[in-house]
Amino acid sequence: MTAGAVTPLDAVIEAHRARIEAALVARLPGPPAVPALLHEAMRYSLVAGGKRLRPVLTLLAAEAVAPDDAAVLDRVLPAACAIEWIHTYSLIHDDLPAMDNDTLRRGRPTSHMVYGDGLAILAGDALLTEAFQLLARTALDVAAADAGRGARTLRAIALVARAAGAAGMVGGQVLDLEAAGQCHAPDVADVRPRRLEAHELRAMHAKKTGALIQAAVVCGAILAGASDEEERALSAFGTELGLAFQIVDDILDVEGEAATLGKTAGKDAAAGKPTYPALFGLEASHELAEAAAARAIAALEPVPHSMRLAELARWVVRRTS
Amino acid sequence: MTAGAVTPLDAVIEAHRARIEAALVARLPGPPAVPALLHEAMRYSLVAGGKRLRPVLTLLAAEAVAPDDAAVLDRVLPAACAIEWIHTYSLIHDDLPAMDNDTLRRGRPTSHMVYGDGLAILAGDALLTEAFQLLARTALDVAAADAGRGARTLRAIALVARAAGAAGMVGGQVLDLEAAGQCHAPDVADVRPRRLEAHELRAMHAKKTGALIQAAVVCGAILAGASDEEERALSAFGTELGLAFQIVDDILDVEGEAATLGKTAGKDAAAGKPTYPALFGLEASHELAEAAAARAIAALEPVPHSMRLAELARWVVRRTS
Repeated sequence: MTAGAVTPLDAVIEAHRARIEAALVARLPGPPAVPALLHEAMRYSLVAGGKRLRPVLTLLAAEAVAPDDAAVLDRVLPAACAIEWIHTYSLIHDDLPAMDNDTLRRGRPTSHMVYGDGLAILAGDALLTEAFQLLARTALDVAAADAGRGARTLRAIALVARAAGAAGMVGGQVLDLEAAGQCHAPDVADVRPRRLEAHELRAMHAKKTGALIQAAVVCGAILAGASDEEERALSAFGTELGLAFQIVDDILDVEGEAATLGKTAGKDAAAGKPTYPALFGLEASHELAEAAAARAIAALEPVPHSMRLAELARWVVRRTS
Repeated sequence: MTAGAVTPLDAVIEAHRARIEAALVARLPGPPAVPALLHEAMRYSLVAGGKRLRPVLTLLAAEAVAPDDAAVLDRVLPAACAIEWIHTYSLIHDDLPAMDNDTLRRGRPTSHMVYGDGLAILAGDALLTEAFQLLARTALDVAAADAGRGARTLRAIALVARAAGAAGMVGGQVLDLEAAGQCHAPDVADVRPRRLEAHELRAMHAKKTGALIQAAVVCGAILAGASDEEERALSAFGTELGLAFQIVDDILDVEGEAATLGKTAGKDAAAGKPTYPALFGLEASHELAEAAAARAIAALEPVPHSMRLAELARWVVRRTS
């Protein structure tokens, strides 16, 4: 692999992305059981592109754990889709006027700009709920054939729900809104934005972005039958990768342009949101991201076939969008 | 049981309600893992009271199927809680200004009136996600002890997710908003409210209210080890009960007073919402509700120990709030 400003991902990773793109909409329930308008709104946000980082991580983690299992990708693909549905729901809700009030996402008008706030909220609700239905149905198929594998799948569902829930992604978004002075307890009079300490910023991002990225990795590992040692290693990898990803996200919000990013640049600073560049400056933020990626790659040591996960970690800190 | 305008529920059903009240908040994840403000907002909507119809149905269905199993209530209680969390999330989101714009629920200000729209959306998201975590964790405990029971629990999760998702509750809310002219495809110019035909009204309610009520019943039955015949019978019971419940809800919106209902009366008519009284008149609506309840009770025939479910069906059509 040659060094450069942007390291291209290899063909295998691109093939995983194509696999996910095809399944994301195909597995969505549709009319007549689902109202056509709801299906359209769910689909709109799913086909908007994006990096598909989380489901790619799920597939790569599964391959790293079971490199000789030809069926492992097929077995893990539904879970990878479910995780991208959950990620997409969180973007739809985060973009709402009541939260980040974003009008542009992945280069297109956000869901509520096209469908209105009510339907956007419901499209998000539906994607979240269908993700758990897909996970449970997949687990059922598996449990019918192999009880031990069924129990593993249940553990993966609980893990994804925890990462997405009150102690994870939703909790992180609440901390973010609180710091920005956008939500508060009813008896609190002072609701000005508050500058987070470094450890608070890290804790907020660990929940808001890190938890689901980590769950995407560990979920793939569990479903592929990881040993306890492999699971611990990949869990540590996921934590550090999530941190690196978020720091780079903050940097891109400052450095990036709307055209490359596909979303409104400079929004975070304008909204007085806590970010790494605001706390540490741009140069130190770059170094923090590189250090987190290096720790992520080092954590992979007990997993022999993890070259592609390492490559993805390098890509995460060099990406420009 | 004596006849009367309001039939009181018997002591066993009241005891089930107390059991659920105690578990609903106790099982909620809280600080420090969950931000205190988020926990407070989730709790606020859970302790607002309410009939607890759905979780009571889950417990009663389990008892009807396994009357001699002393541990059945403990085993089913987490699922009953999860279903009430899902119901509560749906109320929080339905009350938002972007949807029904309700300011009063169960006699108290709605979540967004107290916490703002952003936190109300997130409190709903968290309740939905935590419901699936609770279901999956319970299933895991069960699967560790008994693989066959683990597979049944997975089936219950998939069933609840389907009832709550795009083909169920969320889909019904979309149909409701569409009929009221509150959401539409981006290329549609004419967005006036549309009067639903009788079969469309029934289909909308079957998704919006019926699906989760039915799932509450069937979920309890599955977890208690129902036979196929019992499951079919209780599924039919749930469908008819859900219909009866919704017709009575529509009637109460016309006849009820805010003080008794704990929510704003006459809202549906004012919003031009499709309702049974609007389509059929009040008297015929009462008859339709009684007929649905009678069909519900008749469906219980293959389930010998279902007296309390029948009693609950009678209460549903005689309730005044």
